[in-house]
Amino acid sequence: MRMVDLIEKKRDRKELTREEIQFIVKGFTDGDIPDYQMSALSMAIFFNGMTEQERADLTMSMVDSGDVIDLSAIEGIKVDKHSTGGVGDTTTLVLAPLVAAVGVPVAKMSGRGLGHTGGTIDKLEAISGFDVEISKQEFIDLVNKNKVAVVGQTGNLTPADKKLYALRDVTATVNSIPLIASSIMSKKIAAGADAIVLDIKTGAGAFMKSLDEAKELAQAMVNIGNNVGRNTMAVISDMSQPLGYAIGNALEVKEAIDTLQGKGPKDLEELCLTLGSYMVLLAEKAESLTEARQKLEEVIANGKALEAFKVFLESQGGDGSLVDDPTKLPQAKHIVEVEAKTDGYVSEIIADSIGTAAMWLGAGRATKESEIDLAVGLVLQKKIGDYVKAGESLVTIHSNTEDIAKVKERIYESIKLSEEAVEAPPLVYDTIPK
Amino acid sequence: MRMVDLIEKKRDRKELTREEIQFIVKGFTDGDIPDYQMSALSMAIFFNGMTEQERADLTMSMVDSGDVIDLSAIEGIKVDKHSTGGVGDTTTLVLAPLVAAVGVPVAKMSGRGLGHTGGTIDKLEAISGFDVEISKQEFIDLVNKNKVAVVGQTGNLTPADKKLYALRDVTATVNSIPLIASSIMSKKIAAGADAIVLDIKTGAGAFMKSLDEAKELAQAMVNIGNNVGRNTMAVISDMSQPLGYAIGNALEVKEAIDTLQGKGPKDLEELCLTLGSYMVLLAEKAESLTEARQKLEEVIANGKALEAFKVFLESQGGDGSLVDDPTKLPQAKHIVEVEAKTDGYVSEIIADSIGTAAMWLGAGRATKESEIDLAVGLVLQKKIGDYVKAGESLVTIHSNTEDIAKVKERIYESIKLSEEAVEAPPLVYDTIPK
Repeated sequence: MRMVDLIEKKRDRKELTREEIQFIVKGFTDGDIPDYQMSALSMAIFFNGMTEQERADLTMSMVDSGDVIDLSAIEGIKVDKHSTGGVGDTTTLVLAPLVAAVGVPVAKMSGRGLGHTGGTIDKLEAISGFDVEISKQEFIDLVNKNKVAVVGQTGNLTPADKKLYALRDVTATVNSIPLIASSIMSKKIAAGADAIVLDIKTGAGAFMKSLDEAKELAQAMVNIGNNVGRNTMAVISDMSQPLGYAIGNALEVKEAIDTLQGKGPKDLEELCLTLGSYMVLLAEKAESLTEARQKLEEVIANGKALEAFKVFLESQGGDGSLVDDPTKLPQAKHIVEVEAKTDGYVSEIIADSIGTAAMWLGAGRATKESEIDLAVGLVLQKKIGDYVKAGESLVTIHSNTEDIAKVKERIYESIKLSEEAVEAPPLVYDTIPK
Repeated sequence: MRMVDLIEKKRDRKELTREEIQFIVKGFTDGDIPDYQMSALSMAIFFNGMTEQERADLTMSMVDSGDVIDLSAIEGIKVDKHSTGGVGDTTTLVLAPLVAAVGVPVAKMSGRGLGHTGGTIDKLEAISGFDVEISKQEFIDLVNKNKVAVVGQTGNLTPADKKLYALRDVTATVNSIPLIASSIMSKKIAAGADAIVLDIKTGAGAFMKSLDEAKELAQAMVNIGNNVGRNTMAVISDMSQPLGYAIGNALEVKEAIDTLQGKGPKDLEELCLTLGSYMVLLAEKAESLTEARQKLEEVIANGKALEAFKVFLESQGGDGSLVDDPTKLPQAKHIVEVEAKTDGYVSEIIADSIGTAAMWLGAGRATKESEIDLAVGLVLQKKIGDYVKAGESLVTIHSNTEDIAKVKERIYESIKLSEEAVEAPPLVYDTIPK
């Protein structure tokens, strides 16, 4: 088999066989196939796409390129959730204890993040004493006991994907639905997921700017999952404005605590109930979505969801008491309101732009080397459709520096007011299956 | 400027500016732009093509990447001819003295070749004493004196093209009209051509199998030439069967001598008159194609073309007497006829297949290291449309070994006979301009 012939085959819209895809992925991972051939193939895939079978084969070849986490010692169906990312996305912190409280095993492997705020692990570090450096056996034991545990990423998962992503990043081949879909699915499968719930964000603050693209990506990933024996469902949700109110690490933990008690932002609660229902259904802890949702609402109402969060934090060394007293979370020195200059209806909150303002405060990392300030961030006081009077607060800044002129300016640039009434955007655009 | 943004621009069908193309070609040549980005760009060009302006800019950027031969000390308009290559193509050996005899300066830089037979320099080495290792000054003086000289390739011409071609060869991006056209044109321009006549071959034995592709390539190259100030014209000629009768080095020299006397194969003579007329016209040695052709026919008829060949050979140390006595050329030990097994009309002579048979005899190089046997090769006795009786010779083998069973078998496989009369294919399909 020669790589140049396989590039030509894809270039000419012919289907690559499973053996050919395995040859490509193995050769590329081992360094036998040079980057210049892989980038040419990626560009051919950008133009000609991949068939369902090719996507499934690519995904599993990437899974096979490295370690695969074995979660078989955990009882039940391990359902993982993946979000394509956005601004102020606190769903993981809410969902993990929420579905655990109705018996779904949540064995979460998580990482640190680049971007507007930290990753899930960064956020959990806002909780004094919390430790993700636990052994595999402890991790498994904790999930079996409490139904939820979080561990830092270990092992050499999907090295083919890592290498390919780095190459795509510098060869303008990131934006290919089959390559994006295979990349995400391979990581979830290598991390041990039996079933997967996808939260595909769309809108100005998301990677998929248009709804059509988001739907195409969601369908592509659901098809891959189902073709490789992992039940997969997807929700296409709004990221035209940030989710919830908080953008920042400790601030989002506080918001998660509120949401687990039914006192959080309505959009965040609704999205968590929607995603959570699919997780409960896939874990076979309910017969229908309706039943799943009822169970989730029940554990919020009766305090079991919050209790699960507390147990989870304490079992990994964290201070569970801050669930009852969130003032124990890291607090910023300066609290500053950003007041509306005129009356009006909020018509736009540019999510990634306001996310950048939070990063400037220190809530997120611009580069891998940046240090995160867990206390700082932004809390939105208004969302799209809300009416605001001049002088009322639009956003509260939580800062550890007084030098926030640039951040304020950015916030004003990111929030648009309109004289006419504006309708709030829908939260969930579509689900697969319907 | 970042290469990844330029790849994205081409991927999204936007036009690259001259500065961007210069940045790409210089960066790639210097090693600042890695192969994996250049191959991704090449694949994007394969799919999205290039505009006229981009093609011209790419061509001149590749010219500028290395040495450019300065032929300004040679009087007159230097017209170069380029053929996309085929089997038994003796046109250069005929054309050089032919057009020189009517006053067109022919300053030919030539190379050795891979393939069925050698390159022009290999063929000239069949002439005892002939030396292409002459200095630049000698070369210029000879052209000014005799209107024709041939020198071996020197200098570092179009290194960008060499590097890019090697990369395209292993990334399935050879077959792109803008890249092929820019590659050829850059080499001709770097070699000092003021004007260019192109012989684009089409048919089973050519790189461009279909007439449409050949026309597209021809038009692309003519446009580039005219856009960068080099008058360019093209002839699209047949390579569904070998040109002329001879396939082999000394055998083709003999055929060239015959043709310069008006005694050669009619197709070879006709193509040389067609291409030669364009060369004479571009060199402004005639007012019209008709006048140009008359002049060429005249120097064949009055012996001046053959005389020019003799002077050319002798001025570079060659034995000019073999023009009058071609038996002085290297002769093979064994002359074997390949006889027709049945009666019939020749319906097909698969050019590249029969060319391979000549290479097996030693007429061409399979790899750079192969040695050429100048004496050996094949002489066709019949061409498409000819009637042959069983037992009559189809091909004469000139071999230095008696072990020719494989070669004979290949020849039988390459020549098809039909019971019904067959029309000979046209020699010239099209010209640009008409």
